[in-house]
Amino acid sequence: MSKKIVLYIACSLDGFIAGKDHDLSWLFMDQSYGFEEFEKEFSTAIMGRKTYDFSKQYSNPPFKGKRNFVITSQRNLYSESNNELIFCSIDDIMNFVKNDEPDEGIFLVGGVKLIADFLNLNLLDEIVVAFHPVILGEGIPLFHGIKNKVKLEYNGCEEYSTGLIKLKYTVKKS
Amino acid sequence: MSKKIVLYIACSLDGFIAGKDHDLSWLFMDQSYGFEEFEKEFSTAIMGRKTYDFSKQYSNPPFKGKRNFVITSQRNLYSESNNELIFCSIDDIMNFVKNDEPDEGIFLVGGVKLIADFLNLNLLDEIVVAFHPVILGEGIPLFHGIKNKVKLEYNGCEEYSTGLIKLKYTVKKS
Repeated sequence: MSKKIVLYIACSLDGFIAGKDHDLSWLFMDQSYGFEEFEKEFSTAIMGRKTYDFSKQYSNPPFKGKRNFVITSQRNLYSESNNELIFCSIDDIMNFVKNDEPDEGIFLVGGVKLIADFLNLNLLDEIVVAFHPVILGEGIPLFHGIKNKVKLEYNGCEEYSTGLIKLKYTVKKS
Repeated sequence: MSKKIVLYIACSLDGFIAGKDHDLSWLFMDQSYGFEEFEKEFSTAIMGRKTYDFSKQYSNPPFKGKRNFVITSQRNLYSESNNELIFCSIDDIMNFVKNDEPDEGIFLVGGVKLIADFLNLNLLDEIVVAFHPVILGEGIPLFHGIKNKVKLEYNGCEEYSTGLIKLKYTVKKS
Protein backbone atom coordinates (compact mmCIF):
# COMPACT_ATOMS: atom_id res chain seq x y z
CA MET A 1 0.00 0.00 0.00
CA SER A 2 1.44 3.33 -1.00
CA LYS A 3 0.97 6.54 0.91
CA LYS A 4 0.58 4.88 4.27
CA ILE A 5 1.71 7.01 7.18
CA VAL A 6 3.73 5.16 9.78
CA LEU A 7 4.81 6.33 13.21
CA TYR A 8 8.09 4.59 14.03
CA ILE A 9 9.40 5.50 17.44
CA ALA A 10 11.24 4.32 20.54
CA CYS A 11 10.07 4.67 24.11
CA SER A 12 10.61 3.40 27.64
CA LEU A 13 8.28 0.82 29.18
CA ASP A 14 6.48 3.72 30.85
CA GLY A 15 5.96 5.44 27.52
CA PHE A 16 8.50 8.25 27.50
CA ILE A 17 10.36 9.14 24.31
CA ALA A 18 12.90 11.14 26.32
CA GLY A 19 13.67 11.25 30.01
CA LYS A 20 14.11 14.20 32.32
CA ASP A 21 16.08 17.06 30.72
CA HIS A 22 15.72 15.30 27.34
CA ASP A 23 17.79 12.36 28.56
CA LEU A 24 18.31 9.87 25.71
CA SER A 25 21.17 7.96 27.31
CA TRP A 26 18.89 4.93 27.74
CA LEU A 27 18.29 4.60 23.97
CA PHE A 28 20.05 1.65 22.38
CA MET A 29 22.36 2.97 19.67
CA ASP A 30 24.38 -0.20 19.07
CA GLN A 31 22.44 -1.20 15.95
CA SER A 32 19.64 0.11 13.72
CA TYR A 33 17.03 -2.35 15.09
CA GLY A 34 15.50 -2.75 11.63
CA PHE A 35 15.34 0.96 10.86
CA GLU A 36 17.51 0.58 7.75
CA GLU A 37 14.97 -1.81 6.23
CA PHE A 38 12.07 0.40 7.33
CA GLU A 39 13.74 3.48 5.82
CA LYS A 40 13.74 1.92 2.35
CA GLU A 41 9.94 1.82 2.36
CA PHE A 42 9.33 5.54 2.68
CA SER A 43 10.09 8.55 0.50
CA THR A 44 8.85 11.22 2.87
CA ALA A 45 9.51 12.08 6.51
CA ILE A 46 7.37 14.47 8.53
CA MET A 47 8.59 15.97 11.77
CA GLY A 48 7.95 18.86 14.12
CA ARG A 49 10.37 21.76 14.32
CA LYS A 50 11.86 20.79 17.67
CA THR A 51 12.45 17.26 16.43
CA TYR A 52 14.14 18.72 13.35
CA ASP A 53 16.33 21.02 15.44
CA PHE A 54 17.46 18.02 17.45
CA SER A 55 17.98 15.76 14.44
CA LYS A 56 19.88 18.25 12.30
CA GLN A 57 22.76 18.12 14.76
CA TYR A 58 23.43 14.67 13.38
CA SER A 59 22.23 15.00 9.78
CA ASN A 60 20.76 17.92 7.85
CA PRO A 61 18.36 17.15 6.33
CA PRO A 62 17.71 14.37 8.81
CA PHE A 63 16.82 11.80 6.13
CA LYS A 64 19.08 12.17 3.11
CA GLY A 65 17.52 11.40 -0.25
CA LYS A 66 13.99 11.76 1.17
CA ARG A 67 11.57 14.65 1.31
CA ASN A 68 11.90 16.05 4.84
CA PHE A 69 8.87 18.07 5.88
CA VAL A 70 9.31 20.21 8.98
CA ILE A 71 6.09 21.50 10.51
CA THR A 72 6.47 24.96 11.99
CA SER A 73 4.41 28.08 12.57
CA GLN A 74 7.51 30.24 11.94
CA ARG A 75 6.60 31.48 8.46
CA ASN A 76 10.01 33.14 8.02
CA LEU A 77 11.48 29.64 7.66
CA TYR A 78 9.25 28.71 4.71
CA SER A 79 11.46 30.54 2.19
CA GLU A 80 14.45 28.44 3.28
CA SER A 81 12.82 25.32 1.85
CA ASN A 82 14.54 23.30 -0.86
CA ASN A 83 13.80 20.01 -2.60
CA GLU A 84 14.88 17.86 0.31
CA LEU A 85 13.88 20.07 3.22
CA ILE A 86 10.46 21.73 3.22
CA PHE A 87 9.29 23.99 6.05
CA CYS A 88 5.51 24.28 6.11
CA SER A 89 2.44 24.68 8.28
CA ILE A 90 0.30 21.92 9.72
CA ASP A 91 -2.44 22.85 7.23
CA ASP A 92 0.01 22.50 4.33
CA ILE A 93 1.05 19.05 5.46
CA MET A 94 -2.57 17.97 5.82
CA ASN A 95 -3.18 19.01 2.22
CA PHE A 96 -0.05 17.18 1.14
CA VAL A 97 -1.09 14.02 2.94
CA LYS A 98 -4.59 14.15 1.57
CA ASN A 99 -3.87 15.22 -2.01
CA ASP A 100 -0.32 14.42 -3.04
CA GLU A 101 0.63 10.98 -4.22
CA PRO A 102 4.00 9.87 -2.97
CA ASP A 103 5.24 6.61 -4.46
CA GLU A 104 6.15 5.21 -1.11
CA GLY A 105 5.20 5.48 2.52
CA ILE A 106 5.40 8.44 4.84
CA PHE A 107 7.40 8.26 8.05
CA LEU A 108 6.01 10.27 10.93
CA VAL A 109 9.05 11.03 13.08
CA GLY A 110 7.51 13.08 15.94
CA GLY A 111 7.31 14.99 18.21
CA VAL A 112 4.51 14.53 20.60
CA LYS A 113 2.17 17.27 19.34
CA LEU A 114 2.48 16.11 15.74
CA ILE A 115 1.77 12.51 16.74
CA ALA A 116 -1.35 13.65 18.59
CA ASP A 117 -2.41 15.81 15.63
CA PHE A 118 -2.09 12.89 13.22
CA LEU A 119 -3.98 10.52 15.52
CA ASN A 120 -6.68 13.09 16.28
CA LEU A 121 -7.12 13.81 12.57
CA ASN A 122 -7.35 10.09 11.82
CA LEU A 123 -4.35 10.31 9.46
CA LEU A 124 -2.06 7.70 10.97
CA ASP A 125 -2.09 4.22 9.43
CA GLU A 126 0.49 2.24 11.36
CA ILE A 127 2.45 2.43 14.60
CA VAL A 128 5.77 0.72 15.29
CA VAL A 129 6.93 1.28 18.84
CA ALA A 130 10.26 0.01 20.15
CA PHE A 131 9.95 -0.54 23.88
CA HIS A 132 13.26 -0.26 25.69
CA PRO A 133 13.76 -2.26 28.91
CA VAL A 134 13.70 0.67 31.28
CA ILE A 135 11.23 2.67 33.38
CA LEU A 136 12.26 6.33 33.26
CA GLY A 137 9.75 7.72 35.75
CA GLU A 138 9.45 11.09 34.04
CA GLY A 139 10.09 12.78 30.73
CA ILE A 140 8.33 13.46 27.45
CA PRO A 141 5.37 11.11 26.90
CA LEU A 142 4.93 9.40 23.54
CA PHE A 143 1.17 9.86 23.57
CA HIS A 144 -0.20 13.13 24.93
CA GLY A 145 -3.24 15.12 23.86
CA ILE A 146 -5.05 12.21 22.21
CA LYS A 147 -8.70 13.22 22.18
CA ASN A 148 -10.45 9.93 21.54
CA LYS A 149 -9.83 6.25 22.15
CA VAL A 150 -7.88 4.76 19.22
CA LYS A 151 -8.37 1.07 18.49
CA LEU A 152 -5.41 -0.83 17.08
CA GLU A 153 -4.82 -4.10 15.32
CA TYR A 154 -1.73 -5.94 16.54
CA ASN A 155 0.56 -7.02 13.70
CA GLY A 156 3.33 -8.83 15.54
CA CYS A 157 6.57 -8.04 17.27
CA GLU A 158 10.32 -8.22 16.78
CA GLU A 159 12.52 -9.09 19.74
CA TYR A 160 16.21 -8.28 20.10
CA SER A 161 18.81 -9.80 22.38
CA THR A 162 19.42 -6.42 24.04
CA GLY A 163 15.89 -6.56 25.46
CA LEU A 164 14.30 -4.16 22.98
CA ILE A 165 10.96 -5.30 21.59
CA LYS A 166 9.20 -3.65 18.65
CA LEU A 167 5.41 -3.87 18.62
CA LYS A 168 3.58 -3.27 15.35
CA TYR A 169 0.02 -2.03 14.99
CA THR A 170 -2.40 -0.90 12.33
CA VAL A 171 -4.65 1.96 13.38
CA LYS A 172 -8.32 1.05 13.01
CA LYS A 173 -9.89 4.04 11.30
CA SER A 174 -12.85 5.40 13.24
CA MET B 1 12.80 -18.71 43.49
CA SER B 2 10.41 -18.31 46.37
CA LYS B 3 9.32 -14.99 47.76
CA LYS B 4 9.67 -13.14 44.48
CA ILE B 5 7.28 -10.22 44.12
CA VAL B 6 5.64 -9.94 40.72
CA LEU B 7 3.58 -7.10 39.31
CA TYR B 8 1.11 -8.63 36.85
CA ILE B 9 -1.07 -6.02 35.21
CA ALA B 10 -2.89 -4.95 32.05
CA CYS B 11 -2.63 -1.58 30.34
CA SER B 12 -3.30 0.24 27.11
CA LEU B 13 -0.52 0.96 24.62
CA ASP B 14 -0.29 4.42 26.15
CA GLY B 15 0.17 2.95 29.62
CA PHE B 16 -3.18 3.45 31.31
CA ILE B 17 -4.60 0.78 33.61
CA ALA B 18 -8.04 2.41 33.42
CA GLY B 19 -9.48 5.00 31.09
CA LYS B 20 -11.42 8.16 31.85
CA ASP B 21 -13.97 7.69 34.67
CA HIS B 22 -12.35 4.32 35.47
CA ASP B 23 -13.35 2.94 32.06
CA LEU B 24 -12.37 -0.74 31.80
CA SER B 25 -14.55 -1.60 28.81
CA TRP B 26 -11.41 -1.98 26.65
CA LEU B 27 -10.03 -4.82 28.83
CA PHE B 28 -10.23 -8.23 27.22
CA MET B 29 -12.31 -10.49 29.46
CA ASP B 30 -12.84 -13.37 27.01
CA GLN B 31 -10.12 -15.55 28.53
CA SER B 32 -7.66 -15.52 31.43
CA TYR B 33 -4.62 -14.79 29.21
CA GLY B 34 -2.45 -17.06 31.31
CA PHE B 35 -3.52 -15.66 34.65
CA GLU B 36 -4.77 -19.05 35.87
CA GLU B 37 -1.27 -20.50 35.44
CA PHE B 38 0.32 -17.43 37.01
CA GLU B 39 -2.05 -17.60 39.98
CA LYS B 40 -0.81 -21.09 40.91
CA GLU B 41 2.67 -19.70 41.54
CA PHE B 42 1.79 -17.30 44.33
CA SER B 43 0.38 -17.69 47.83
CA THR B 44 0.05 -14.01 48.65
CA ALA B 45 -1.57 -11.02 46.96
CA ILE B 46 -0.89 -7.42 47.95
CA MET B 47 -3.19 -4.61 46.88
CA GLY B 48 -4.14 -1.07 47.75
CA ARG B 49 -7.46 -0.32 49.44
CA LYS B 50 -9.09 1.19 46.34
CA THR B 51 -8.06 -1.82 44.30
CA TYR B 52 -9.55 -4.05 47.00
CA ASP B 53 -12.81 -2.07 47.06
CA PHE B 54 -13.10 -2.52 43.31
CA SER B 55 -12.13 -6.20 43.33
CA LYS B 56 -14.38 -7.25 46.21
CA GLN B 57 -17.43 -6.53 44.07
CA TYR B 58 -16.47 -9.65 42.14
CA SER B 59 -14.82 -11.77 44.82
CA ASN B 60 -14.20 -11.17 48.52
CA PRO B 61 -11.46 -11.83 49.31
CA PRO B 62 -10.30 -11.14 45.75
CA PHE B 63 -8.03 -14.20 45.62
CA LYS B 64 -9.64 -17.18 47.33
CA GLY B 65 -7.29 -19.56 49.07
CA LYS B 66 -4.50 -16.97 49.15
CA ARG B 67 -3.41 -14.45 51.73
CA ASN B 68 -4.90 -11.14 50.58
CA PHE B 69 -3.09 -8.14 52.06
CA VAL B 70 -4.89 -4.81 51.72
CA ILE B 71 -2.75 -1.77 52.37
CA THR B 72 -4.66 1.04 54.04
CA SER B 73 -4.08 3.87 56.48
CA GLN B 74 -7.57 3.33 57.96
CA ARG B 75 -6.55 1.67 61.19
CA ASN B 76 -10.17 0.90 62.11
CA LEU B 77 -10.14 -1.74 59.36
CA TYR B 78 -7.21 -3.66 60.86
CA SER B 79 -9.42 -5.46 63.42
CA GLU B 80 -11.54 -6.84 60.57
CA SER B 81 -8.63 -8.94 59.35
CA ASN B 82 -8.93 -12.71 59.15
CA ASN B 83 -6.70 -15.49 57.84
CA GLU B 84 -7.43 -14.79 54.19
CA LEU B 85 -7.90 -11.02 54.30
CA ILE B 86 -5.42 -8.86 56.20
CA PHE B 87 -5.73 -5.09 56.41
CA CYS B 88 -2.44 -3.47 57.30
CA SER B 89 -0.20 -0.45 56.88
CA ILE B 90 2.49 0.03 54.26
CA ASP B 91 5.11 -0.38 57.03
CA ASP B 92 3.56 -3.70 58.07
CA ILE B 93 3.71 -5.02 54.54
CA MET B 94 7.33 -3.95 54.16
CA ASN B 95 8.16 -5.94 57.29
CA PHE B 96 6.20 -8.90 55.96
CA VAL B 97 7.99 -8.79 52.65
CA LYS B 98 11.40 -8.45 54.26
CA ASN B 99 11.02 -10.90 57.12
CA ASP B 100 8.28 -13.43 56.51
CA GLU B 101 8.94 -16.49 54.40
CA PRO B 102 6.03 -17.37 52.16
CA ASP B 103 6.39 -20.68 50.34
CA GLU B 104 5.50 -19.19 47.02
CA GLY B 105 5.57 -15.90 45.15
CA ILE B 106 3.84 -12.65 45.96
CA PHE B 107 1.48 -11.05 43.46
CA LEU B 108 1.45 -7.25 43.51
CA VAL B 109 -2.00 -6.34 42.19
CA GLY B 110 -1.93 -2.50 42.30
CA GLY B 111 -2.88 0.27 42.39
CA VAL B 112 -0.62 2.94 41.11
CA LYS B 113 0.72 4.27 44.43
CA LEU B 114 1.55 0.80 45.69
CA ILE B 115 3.35 -0.05 42.45
CA ALA B 116 5.41 3.13 42.77
CA ASP B 117 6.13 2.39 46.45
CA PHE B 118 7.39 -1.10 45.64
CA LEU B 119 9.55 0.14 42.76
CA ASN B 120 10.90 3.07 44.77
CA LEU B 121 11.74 0.78 47.69
CA ASN B 122 13.47 -1.66 45.34
CA LEU B 123 11.12 -4.47 46.40
CA LEU B 124 9.71 -5.54 43.03
CA ASP B 125 11.36 -8.53 41.32
CA GLU B 126 9.38 -9.03 38.12
CA ILE B 127 6.92 -7.19 35.91
CA VAL B 128 4.41 -8.80 33.55
CA VAL B 129 2.48 -6.21 31.57
CA ALA B 130 -0.32 -7.13 29.17
CA PHE B 131 -0.53 -4.44 26.52
CA HIS B 132 -4.00 -4.16 24.98
CA PRO B 133 -4.30 -2.92 21.38
CA VAL B 134 -5.78 0.46 22.18
CA ILE B 135 -4.69 4.03 22.90
CA LEU B 136 -6.96 5.47 25.59
CA GLY B 137 -5.66 9.05 25.60
CA GLU B 138 -6.36 9.60 29.28
CA GLY B 139 -6.94 7.71 32.50
CA ILE B 140 -4.97 6.21 35.36
CA PRO B 141 -1.29 5.67 34.47
CA LEU B 142 0.37 2.36 35.30
CA PHE B 143 3.60 4.04 36.34
CA HIS B 144 3.38 7.29 38.27
CA GLY B 145 5.59 8.64 41.02
CA ILE B 146 8.63 6.54 40.14
CA LYS B 147 11.57 8.40 41.63
CA ASN B 148 14.51 6.86 39.83
CA LYS B 149 15.20 5.18 36.52
CA VAL B 150 14.55 1.42 36.80
CA LYS B 151 16.52 -0.87 34.51
CA LEU B 152 14.80 -4.05 33.37
CA GLU B 153 15.83 -7.33 31.83
CA TYR B 154 13.48 -8.50 29.09
CA ASN B 155 12.34 -12.10 29.57
CA GLY B 156 10.17 -12.68 26.52
CA CYS B 157 6.59 -12.15 25.45
CA GLU B 158 3.35 -14.02 24.92
CA GLU B 159 1.12 -13.04 22.02
CA TYR B 160 -2.60 -13.73 21.73
CA SER B 161 -4.85 -13.75 18.65
CA THR B 162 -6.95 -10.93 20.12
CA GLY B 163 -3.96 -8.60 19.81
CA LEU B 164 -2.95 -8.65 23.47
CA ILE B 165 0.78 -9.07 24.08
CA LYS B 166 2.31 -9.80 27.48
CA LEU B 167 5.84 -8.51 28.05
CA LYS B 168 7.89 -10.03 30.86
CA TYR B 169 10.71 -8.32 32.70
CA THR B 170 13.00 -8.86 35.66
CA VAL B 171 13.77 -5.72 37.64
CA LYS B 172 17.51 -5.11 37.86
CA LYS B 173 18.16 -4.26 41.48
CA SER B 174 19.96 -0.97 41.91
